Amino acid sequence: MTDGGSVKGEIVASCEPLMPPGTFFVGGHPIAGTEKSGVEAAFATLYQHRRCILTPTEATNPEALAKVERMWQIAGSDVVLMDTFKHDRVMGAVSHLPHMVAYSLVNAVGAYDRCDENLLKYSAGGFRDFTRIASSDPVMWRDIAVMNRDALLEMMDFFAGWFADLRRLVESGDSRGLEQFFASSKGYRDGIG
Amino acid sequence: MTDGGSVKGEIVASCEPLMPPGTFFVGGHPIAGTEKSGVEAAFATLYQHRRCILTPTEATNPEALAKVERMWQIAGSDVVLMDTFKHDRVMGAVSHLPHMVAYSLVNAVGAYDRCDENLLKYSAGGFRDFTRIASSDPVMWRDIAVMNRDALLEMMDFFAGWFADLRRLVESGDSRGLEQFFASSKGYRDGIG
Repeated sequence: MTDGGSVKGEIVASCEPLMPPGTFFVGGHPIAGTEKSGVEAAFATLYQHRRCILTPTEATNPEALAKVERMWQIAGSDVVLMDTFKHDRVMGAVSHLPHMVAYSLVNAVGAYDRCDENLLKYSAGGFRDFTRIASSDPVMWRDIAVMNRDALLEMMDFFAGWFADLRRLVESGDSRGLEQFFASSKGYRDGIG
Repeated sequence: MTDGGSVKGEIVASCEPLMPPGTFFVGGHPIAGTEKSGVEAAFATLYQHRRCILTPTEATNPEALAKVERMWQIAGSDVVLMDTFKHDRVMGAVSHLPHMVAYSLVNAVGAYDRCDENLLKYSAGGFRDFTRIASSDPVMWRDIAVMNRDALLEMMDFFAGWFADLRRLVESGDSRGLEQFFASSKGYRDGIG
Protein backbone atom coordinates (compact mmCIF):
# COMPACT_ATOMS: atom_id res chain seq x y z
CA MET A 1 0.00 0.00 0.00
CA THR A 2 1.22 3.49 -0.78
CA ASP A 3 -0.07 7.05 -0.78
CA GLY A 4 0.66 10.40 -2.41
CA GLY A 5 0.09 12.84 0.43
CA SER A 6 2.08 16.01 1.05
CA VAL A 7 3.17 15.11 4.61
CA LYS A 8 4.91 11.85 5.42
CA GLY A 9 5.89 11.68 9.11
CA GLU A 10 2.44 11.41 10.60
CA ILE A 11 1.01 9.31 7.74
CA VAL A 12 3.78 6.71 7.75
CA ALA A 13 3.86 6.49 11.56
CA SER A 14 0.09 5.98 11.62
CA CYS A 15 -0.27 3.55 8.70
CA GLU A 16 2.74 1.29 9.13
CA PRO A 17 1.53 -0.40 12.35
CA LEU A 18 -1.90 -1.03 10.83
CA MET A 19 -0.69 -3.22 7.97
CA PRO A 20 -1.67 -6.91 8.18
CA PRO A 21 1.21 -9.44 8.26
CA GLY A 22 2.93 -9.82 4.90
CA THR A 23 1.74 -6.43 3.62
CA PHE A 24 3.64 -3.13 3.75
CA PHE A 25 3.05 0.58 3.66
CA VAL A 26 5.42 2.68 1.55
CA GLY A 27 5.00 6.45 1.95
CA GLY A 28 5.15 8.37 -1.31
CA HIS A 29 4.84 11.93 -2.53
CA PRO A 30 5.03 13.01 -6.18
CA ILE A 31 6.37 16.58 -6.41
CA ALA A 32 3.99 17.67 -9.13
CA GLY A 33 0.75 19.54 -9.40
CA THR A 34 -0.74 22.96 -9.86
CA GLU A 35 -2.90 25.24 -7.75
CA LYS A 36 -5.88 23.15 -8.95
CA SER A 37 -7.18 20.15 -7.03
CA GLY A 38 -9.17 17.03 -7.76
CA VAL A 39 -9.30 14.36 -10.43
CA GLU A 40 -10.39 16.86 -13.08
CA ALA A 41 -7.11 18.75 -12.67
CA ALA A 42 -5.06 15.70 -13.72
CA PHE A 43 -3.33 15.47 -17.10
CA ALA A 44 -1.43 12.60 -18.73
CA THR A 45 2.05 14.07 -18.41
CA LEU A 46 1.62 15.36 -14.82
CA TYR A 47 4.31 13.13 -13.31
CA GLN A 48 6.77 13.04 -16.19
CA HIS A 49 10.28 14.23 -15.33
CA ARG A 50 9.07 15.21 -11.86
CA ARG A 51 10.59 13.96 -8.64
CA CYS A 52 8.65 11.47 -6.58
CA ILE A 53 9.86 11.06 -3.00
CA LEU A 54 9.42 7.70 -1.30
CA THR A 55 10.04 7.42 2.43
CA PRO A 56 10.88 3.83 3.42
CA THR A 57 11.53 3.03 7.07
CA GLU A 58 13.61 0.28 8.68
CA ALA A 59 10.48 -1.88 8.57
CA THR A 60 9.87 -1.47 4.83
CA ASN A 61 10.11 -4.66 2.79
CA PRO A 62 12.60 -4.13 -0.08
CA GLU A 63 10.32 -5.85 -2.63
CA ALA A 64 7.37 -3.65 -1.65
CA LEU A 65 9.57 -0.58 -2.03
CA ALA A 66 10.82 -1.76 -5.43
CA LYS A 67 7.24 -2.30 -6.62
CA VAL A 68 6.15 1.23 -5.66
CA GLU A 69 9.35 2.67 -7.11
CA ARG A 70 8.65 0.89 -10.41
CA MET A 71 5.09 2.24 -10.50
CA TRP A 72 6.32 5.83 -10.31
CA GLN A 73 9.05 5.19 -12.86
CA ILE A 74 6.41 3.92 -15.30
CA ALA A 75 4.51 7.18 -14.72
CA GLY A 76 7.69 9.01 -15.76
CA SER A 77 8.89 10.20 -12.35
CA ASP A 78 12.42 10.38 -10.99
CA VAL A 79 12.22 8.51 -7.71
CA VAL A 80 14.19 9.81 -4.72
CA LEU A 81 14.39 8.06 -1.34
CA MET A 82 14.66 9.86 1.98
CA ASP A 83 13.36 9.51 5.53
CA THR A 84 10.07 11.08 6.58
CA PHE A 85 11.80 13.71 8.76
CA LYS A 86 13.79 15.07 5.84
CA HIS A 87 10.81 14.85 3.47
CA ASP A 88 8.67 16.96 5.78
CA ARG A 89 11.38 19.63 6.07
CA VAL A 90 12.11 19.67 2.34
CA MET A 91 8.43 20.13 1.56
CA GLY A 92 7.96 22.48 4.50
CA ALA A 93 10.58 24.73 2.94
CA VAL A 94 9.92 24.58 -0.81
CA SER A 95 6.14 24.12 -0.78
CA HIS A 96 4.34 24.57 2.54
CA LEU A 97 6.17 27.73 3.63
CA PRO A 98 5.65 29.50 0.27
CA HIS A 99 1.94 28.75 0.51
CA MET A 100 1.74 30.23 4.02
CA VAL A 101 3.60 33.30 2.76
CA ALA A 102 1.36 33.70 -0.28
CA TYR A 103 -1.86 33.24 1.69
CA SER A 104 -0.67 35.82 4.24
CA LEU A 105 0.42 38.28 1.58
CA VAL A 106 -2.88 38.19 -0.28
CA ASN A 107 -4.84 38.53 2.96
CA ALA A 108 -2.71 41.51 3.97
CA VAL A 109 -2.99 43.35 0.66
CA GLY A 110 -6.66 42.46 0.33
CA ALA A 111 -7.48 43.69 3.84
CA TYR A 112 -5.46 46.92 3.63
CA ASP A 113 -8.03 49.67 3.95
CA ARG A 114 -6.12 52.92 4.45
CA CYS A 115 -6.61 53.97 0.82
CA ASP A 116 -9.90 54.89 -0.81
CA GLU A 117 -10.04 51.76 -2.95
CA ASN A 118 -8.85 48.16 -2.72
CA LEU A 119 -5.18 47.91 -3.62
CA LEU A 120 -5.61 44.53 -5.31
CA LYS A 121 -7.13 46.45 -8.22
CA TYR A 122 -3.61 47.56 -9.12
CA SER A 123 -1.99 44.14 -9.09
CA ALA A 124 -0.03 43.48 -12.28
CA GLY A 125 1.50 40.33 -13.72
CA GLY A 126 4.20 40.03 -11.06
CA PHE A 127 1.71 40.02 -8.20
CA ARG A 128 -0.55 37.58 -10.01
CA ASP A 129 2.25 35.10 -10.70
CA PHE A 130 3.59 35.51 -7.19
CA THR A 131 0.26 34.85 -5.54
CA ARG A 132 -1.21 32.18 -7.82
CA ILE A 133 -0.64 29.51 -5.15
CA ALA A 134 -2.96 31.45 -2.82
CA SER A 135 -5.77 30.11 -5.04
CA SER A 136 -5.01 26.59 -3.82
CA ASP A 137 -7.62 24.51 -2.02
CA PRO A 138 -8.12 25.80 1.56
CA VAL A 139 -9.21 22.40 2.87
CA MET A 140 -6.13 20.60 1.53
CA TRP A 141 -3.84 23.28 2.92
CA ARG A 142 -5.62 23.24 6.26
CA ASP A 143 -4.81 19.52 6.50
CA ILE A 144 -1.19 20.02 5.43
CA ALA A 145 -0.70 22.81 7.96
CA VAL A 146 -2.12 20.64 10.72
CA MET A 147 -0.17 17.50 9.77
CA ASN A 148 3.21 19.13 9.12
CA ARG A 149 2.94 21.48 12.09
CA ASP A 150 6.43 21.05 13.55
CA ALA A 151 8.41 21.37 10.32
CA LEU A 152 6.18 24.19 9.14
CA LEU A 153 6.61 26.20 12.34
CA GLU A 154 10.36 25.71 12.05
CA MET A 155 10.32 27.04 8.48
CA MET A 156 7.92 29.90 9.28
CA ASP A 157 10.19 31.06 12.09
CA PHE A 158 13.26 30.74 9.90
CA PHE A 159 11.60 32.86 7.20
CA ALA A 160 10.32 35.39 9.74
CA GLY A 161 13.88 35.87 10.96
CA TRP A 162 15.10 36.71 7.46
CA PHE A 163 12.13 38.99 6.88
CA ALA A 164 12.84 40.81 10.15
CA ASP A 165 16.48 41.23 9.11
CA LEU A 166 15.34 42.79 5.85
CA ARG A 167 12.94 45.07 7.69
CA ARG A 168 15.82 46.36 9.78
CA LEU A 169 17.84 47.06 6.63
CA VAL A 170 14.90 48.98 5.14
CA GLU A 171 14.32 50.91 8.34
CA SER A 172 17.95 51.96 8.64
CA GLY A 173 18.23 52.71 4.92
CA ASP A 174 21.29 50.46 4.71
CA SER A 175 21.93 50.56 0.95
CA ARG A 176 24.91 48.25 1.05
CA GLY A 177 23.13 45.70 3.25
CA LEU A 178 19.99 45.82 1.10
CA GLU A 179 21.92 45.22 -2.10
CA GLN A 180 23.78 42.29 -0.51
CA PHE A 181 20.51 40.80 0.77
CA PHE A 182 18.88 41.04 -2.67
CA ALA A 183 22.00 39.84 -4.52
CA SER A 184 22.31 36.80 -2.26
CA SER A 185 18.69 35.89 -2.95
CA LYS A 186 19.05 36.47 -6.69
CA GLY A 187 22.09 34.17 -6.63
CA TYR A 188 20.10 31.35 -5.03
CA ARG A 189 17.12 31.95 -7.31
CA ASP A 190 19.09 32.12 -10.56
CA GLY A 191 20.71 28.83 -9.53
CA ILE A 192 17.45 26.88 -9.78
CA GLY A 193 16.49 28.12 -13.26
CA MET B 1 9.58 66.53 -17.95
CA THR B 2 8.41 63.18 -16.71
CA ASP B 3 9.88 59.93 -15.37
CA GLY B 4 8.96 56.27 -15.06
CA GLY B 5 10.36 55.40 -11.65
CA SER B 6 8.79 53.00 -9.14
CA VAL B 7 8.55 55.52 -6.28
CA LYS B 8 6.88 58.88 -6.67
CA GLY B 9 6.82 60.80 -3.37
CA GLU B 10 10.52 61.48 -3.06
CA ILE B 11 11.07 61.94 -6.82
CA VAL B 12 8.25 64.43 -7.34
CA ALA B 13 9.09 66.37 -4.16
CA SER B 14 12.72 66.61 -5.27
CA CYS B 15 12.21 67.38 -8.96
CA GLU B 16 9.28 69.77 -8.93
CA PRO B 17 11.12 72.68 -7.24
CA LEU B 18 14.04 72.33 -9.67
CA MET B 19 12.02 73.01 -12.83
CA PRO B 20 12.83 76.30 -14.59
CA PRO B 21 9.90 78.76 -14.94
CA GLY B 22 7.39 77.67 -17.57
CA THR B 23 8.42 74.01 -17.40
CA PHE B 24 6.80 71.28 -15.33
CA PHE B 25 7.58 67.90 -13.82
CA VAL B 26 4.88 65.21 -14.07
CA GLY B 27 5.61 62.07 -12.10
CA GLY B 28 4.77 58.85 -13.95
CA HIS B 29 4.97 55.12 -13.41
CA PRO B 30 3.96 52.48 -15.96
CA ILE B 31 2.83 49.31 -14.17
CA ALA B 32 4.52 46.93 -16.56
CA GLY B 33 7.71 44.96 -16.71
CA THR B 34 9.23 41.63 -15.87
CA GLU B 35 11.99 40.45 -13.55
CA LYS B 36 14.45 41.56 -16.28
CA SER B 37 16.02 45.03 -16.36
CA GLY B 38 17.57 47.30 -18.94
CA VAL B 39 16.86 48.45 -22.47
CA GLU B 40 17.42 44.93 -23.85
CA ALA B 41 14.47 43.66 -21.79
CA ALA B 42 12.04 45.99 -23.60
CA PHE B 43 9.51 44.75 -26.17
CA ALA B 44 7.10 46.64 -28.40
CA THR B 45 3.89 45.70 -26.59
CA LEU B 46 5.28 46.20 -23.07
CA TYR B 47 2.91 49.03 -22.17
CA GLN B 48 -0.19 47.94 -24.06
CA HIS B 49 -3.31 47.51 -21.91
CA ARG B 50 -1.21 48.16 -18.79
CA ARG B 51 -1.94 50.86 -16.25
CA CYS B 52 0.27 53.90 -16.14
CA ILE B 53 -0.04 55.99 -12.97
CA LEU B 54 0.59 59.75 -13.20
CA THR B 55 0.92 61.74 -9.99
CA PRO B 56 0.13 65.42 -10.61
CA THR B 57 0.36 67.86 -7.71
CA GLU B 58 -1.41 71.16 -7.10
CA ALA B 59 1.46 72.84 -8.96
CA THR B 60 1.13 70.70 -12.09
CA ASN B 61 0.21 72.59 -15.25
CA PRO B 62 -2.88 70.94 -16.85
CA GLU B 63 -1.40 71.14 -20.35
CA ALA B 64 1.82 69.49 -19.24
CA LEU B 65 -0.20 66.74 -17.60
CA ALA B 66 -2.34 66.27 -20.74
CA LYS B 67 0.81 65.97 -22.87
CA VAL B 68 2.31 63.23 -20.71
CA GLU B 69 -1.06 61.48 -20.50
CA ARG B 70 -1.30 61.49 -24.28
CA MET B 71 2.20 60.04 -24.61
CA TRP B 72 1.29 57.01 -22.48
CA GLN B 73 -2.03 56.57 -24.28
CA ILE B 74 -0.17 56.39 -27.60
CA ALA B 75 2.02 53.67 -26.07
CA GLY B 76 -1.21 51.79 -25.33
CA SER B 77 -1.47 52.37 -21.58
CA ASP B 78 -4.54 53.06 -19.47
CA VAL B 79 -3.64 56.23 -17.59
CA VAL B 80 -4.72 56.58 -13.94
CA LEU B 81 -4.19 59.70 -11.84
CA MET B 82 -3.52 59.67 -8.10
CA ASP B 83 -1.42 61.55 -5.57
CA THR B 84 2.11 60.42 -4.76
CA PHE B 85 1.15 59.24 -1.26
CA LYS B 86 -1.42 56.80 -2.62
CA HIS B 87 0.85 55.71 -5.47
CA ASP B 88 3.63 54.77 -3.06
CA ARG B 89 1.24 52.74 -0.90
CA VAL B 90 -0.38 51.01 -3.88
CA MET B 91 3.02 50.01 -5.24
CA GLY B 92 4.35 49.28 -1.76
CA ALA B 93 1.55 46.74 -1.40
CA VAL B 94 1.26 45.07 -4.81
CA SER B 95 4.89 45.26 -5.93
CA HIS B 96 7.48 46.30 -3.35
CA LEU B 97 6.17 44.13 -0.49
CA PRO B 98 5.97 40.97 -2.66
CA HIS B 99 9.57 41.52 -3.73
CA MET B 100 10.71 41.83 -0.09
CA VAL B 101 8.79 38.66 0.73
CA ALA B 102 10.24 36.75 -2.23
CA TYR B 103 13.81 37.86 -1.55
CA SER B 104 13.45 36.86 2.12
CA LEU B 105 11.88 33.51 1.26
CA VAL B 106 14.62 32.52 -1.18
CA ASN B 107 17.34 33.60 1.26
CA ALA B 108 15.70 31.59 4.03
CA VAL B 109 15.28 28.40 2.00
CA GLY B 110 18.70 28.79 0.40
CA ALA B 111 20.43 29.29 3.74
CA TYR B 112 18.63 26.47 5.58
CA ASP B 113 21.37 24.02 6.50
CA ARG B 114 19.83 21.52 8.90
CA CYS B 115 19.49 18.87 6.19
CA ASP B 116 22.33 17.09 4.43
CA GLU B 117 21.73 18.86 1.12
CA ASN B 118 20.41 22.21 -0.07
CA LEU B 119 16.61 22.22 -0.05
CA LEU B 120 16.40 24.42 -3.17
CA LYS B 121 17.30 21.27 -5.11
CA TYR B 122 13.74 20.08 -4.48
CA SER B 123 11.97 23.21 -5.67
CA ALA B 124 9.27 22.44 -8.21
CA GLY B 125 7.22 24.65 -10.52
CA GLY B 126 5.24 26.31 -7.75
CA PHE B 127 8.34 27.50 -5.93
CA ARG B 128 9.94 28.68 -9.15
CA ASP B 129 6.91 30.71 -10.21
CA PHE B 130 6.50 32.07 -6.71
CA THR B 131 10.10 33.21 -6.43
CA ARG B 132 10.78 34.41 -9.96
CA ILE B 133 10.72 38.04 -8.81
CA ALA B 134 13.66 37.28 -6.50
CA SER B 135 15.75 37.25 -9.69
CA SER B 136 15.09 40.98 -10.10
CA ASP B 137 17.93 43.49 -10.20
CA PRO B 138 19.37 43.97 -6.66
CA VAL B 139 20.54 47.53 -7.40
CA MET B 140 17.13 48.68 -8.62
CA TRP B 141 15.42 47.10 -5.63
CA ARG B 142 17.97 48.58 -3.24
CA ASP B 143 17.01 52.02 -4.57
CA ILE B 144 13.27 51.32 -4.37
CA ALA B 145 13.59 50.05 -0.78
CA VAL B 146 15.51 53.18 0.20
CA MET B 147 13.19 55.61 -1.59
CA ASN B 148 9.87 54.08 -0.55
CA ARG B 149 11.02 53.37 3.00
CA ASP B 150 7.97 54.65 4.90
CA ALA B 151 5.27 53.00 2.79
CA LEU B 152 7.32 49.82 2.54
CA LEU B 153 7.79 49.56 6.31
CA GLU B 154 4.07 50.09 6.75
CA MET B 155 3.31 47.25 4.32
CA MET B 156 6.00 44.94 5.75
CA ASP B 157 4.57 45.38 9.24
CA PHE B 158 1.06 44.84 7.96
CA PHE B 159 2.12 41.60 6.25
CA ALA B 160 4.15 40.46 9.29
CA GLY B 161 1.03 40.84 11.42
CA TRP B 162 -0.97 38.55 9.12
CA PHE B 163 1.91 36.07 8.96
CA ALA B 164 2.14 36.03 12.78
CA ASP B 165 -1.62 35.40 12.97
CA LEU B 166 -1.22 32.44 10.65
CA ARG B 167 1.72 31.13 12.67
CA ARG B 168 -0.49 31.13 15.77
CA LEU B 169 -3.18 29.18 13.90
CA VAL B 170 -0.59 26.60 12.80
CA GLU B 171 0.89 26.34 16.29
CA SER B 172 -2.47 25.79 17.93
CA GLY B 173 -3.62 23.40 15.18
CA ASP B 174 -6.76 25.48 14.71
CA SER B 175 -8.30 23.68 11.72
CA ARG B 176 -11.29 25.96 11.46
CA GLY B 177 -9.20 29.13 11.71
CA LEU B 178 -6.69 27.83 9.17
CA GLU B 179 -9.38 26.98 6.65
CA GLN B 180 -10.97 30.43 7.08
CA PHE B 181 -7.59 32.14 6.67
CA PHE B 182 -6.84 30.23 3.46
CA ALA B 183 -10.38 30.62 2.09
CA SER B 184 -10.31 34.38 2.66
CA SER B 185 -7.04 34.64 0.77
CA LYS B 186 -8.28 32.41 -2.05
CA GLY B 187 -11.33 34.64 -2.33
CA TYR B 188 -9.21 37.76 -2.76
CA ARG B 189 -6.84 36.01 -5.15
CA ASP B 190 -9.53 34.45 -7.34
CA GLY B 191 -11.05 37.91 -7.62
CA ILE B 192 -8.09 39.31 -9.55
CA GLY B 193 -7.95 36.54 -12.15
